[in-house]
Amino acid sequence: MLKATHHLSVAQSSRKMPYTLVLLRHGQSEWNAKDQFTGWVDAPLSELGRAEALRGGELLKERNILPDVVHTSVLRRAIETANISLDKADRNWIPVHRSWRLNERHYGALQGKNKAQTRDAYGDEQFMLWRRSYDTPPPPIEVNSKYSQDKDPRYTVLAGDIPRTECLKDVVQRMLPYFHDAIVPDLQANKVVLVAAHGNSLRALVKHLDEISDTDIAALNIPTGIPLVYELDEKMKPLKRGGEYLDPEEAAKSAAAVANQGKK
Amino acid sequence: MLKATHHLSVAQSSRKMPYTLVLLRHGQSEWNAKDQFTGWVDAPLSELGRAEALRGGELLKERNILPDVVHTSVLRRAIETANISLDKADRNWIPVHRSWRLNERHYGALQGKNKAQTRDAYGDEQFMLWRRSYDTPPPPIEVNSKYSQDKDPRYTVLAGDIPRTECLKDVVQRMLPYFHDAIVPDLQANKVVLVAAHGNSLRALVKHLDEISDTDIAALNIPTGIPLVYELDEKMKPLKRGGEYLDPEEAAKSAAAVANQGKK
Repeated sequence: MLKATHHLSVAQSSRKMPYTLVLLRHGQSEWNAKDQFTGWVDAPLSELGRAEALRGGELLKERNILPDVVHTSVLRRAIETANISLDKADRNWIPVHRSWRLNERHYGALQGKNKAQTRDAYGDEQFMLWRRSYDTPPPPIEVNSKYSQDKDPRYTVLAGDIPRTECLKDVVQRMLPYFHDAIVPDLQANKVVLVAAHGNSLRALVKHLDEISDTDIAALNIPTGIPLVYELDEKMKPLKRGGEYLDPEEAAKSAAAVANQGKK
Repeated sequence: MLKATHHLSVAQSSRKMPYTLVLLRHGQSEWNAKDQFTGWVDAPLSELGRAEALRGGELLKERNILPDVVHTSVLRRAIETANISLDKADRNWIPVHRSWRLNERHYGALQGKNKAQTRDAYGDEQFMLWRRSYDTPPPPIEVNSKYSQDKDPRYTVLAGDIPRTECLKDVVQRMLPYFHDAIVPDLQANKVVLVAAHGNSLRALVKHLDEISDTDIAALNIPTGIPLVYELDEKMKPLKRGGEYLDPEEAAKSAAAVANQGKK
């Protein structure tokens, strides 16, 4: 191999604090479009969801926020979102890591159920408790339910300890080990880190970063497909609480739409 | 998290030898379609190329050869091929590793040139020497040529030691360290390993596996989009020399077409 006569960019090694963490919630899935509780069911992106992912990649490229590494859940809607947006940003060659710890909240027995019908059947109060209570999980999903993941090979690593339902508190508890073990080391190595995940795994992460109370987190909604950029100090605390959406106007509209899901 | 009451499949841990290595050459790129030397230029897949990748994934699924881990080059045509085929095979959630060591051969000053025009300009003998000689590289590409990768951030890790041209012998030498350091350990852990790469990086690997001579390798062509499955013994030697294509009839046709590239 011949020696090049000029130096390559050393942007990565000379980058300083703050650390840059980019959160990206997957675009609309085929099940979001049908207003169904999805959780760990592996619904693919809808056409709109693919368009949202493309827009997410365009925003990264336009703003020159170029991920050096990506972490995704093991669910295809987050994986597709990462693939599409990174391809658009000319960064699909970066290292990839995946973990079930970034998965959406397991919705227990609600998985596969229509949101509006669930609200009708159980009433507003119970519905909102399941959707937004910090520590009340829905009823557990039955073993071998068609909407359970008991036989899914991607969870073999759990050796049978697969969740049967989760509240947001459970998601915080199973997500944080991955944040500390896998994401923080990448940030500390001065990498721009992209996390492509889900409404509730990202709410769990934002709750931790912004130190949001168990009560206040109920009102936080994260829009789909719009990169949310956090600059973090050496203690992994945000320089600006709440971070910055790359398209703040669209983000506000989209968050309002998420809050209205299942309303008549 | 609740404990599941039945056991997950333990297929992975109970798998025995032989080890399974699946090679997949990317489908047609936009530059293949124009009959141009591509090398390290980052051409995307053509529509036909995406269809080929989809077919590759279907073949894996039909034959139940399901990768546990994938290794790709850092070029988008191989990355897209892996993404599309693994998505089709319901395996896009597996761990991903990428390395420039799996890249296509660097075609030096030929990168960006039309194959038929090159053959016309330099004659059959020189053309075939550059394409198929084991140890004669094309002339080196100029620094800052529009077809060089001097400023491409994915090669920052090379710290300036970026190839300016390669013969197949060079590819063998830079690919083998990755085979031994990254691929063999995955095989030894009983993982079904998919390598999504390029005509010449895969020829280099096949040359090593099948112990093909420096002369005989000239005649070996690898078709696009058709998984080539090797079963390997504990010394990483094939149980069956040449492995097995999952669609042998199509593979034979396609290899003949590759051999004819640049012919009038």
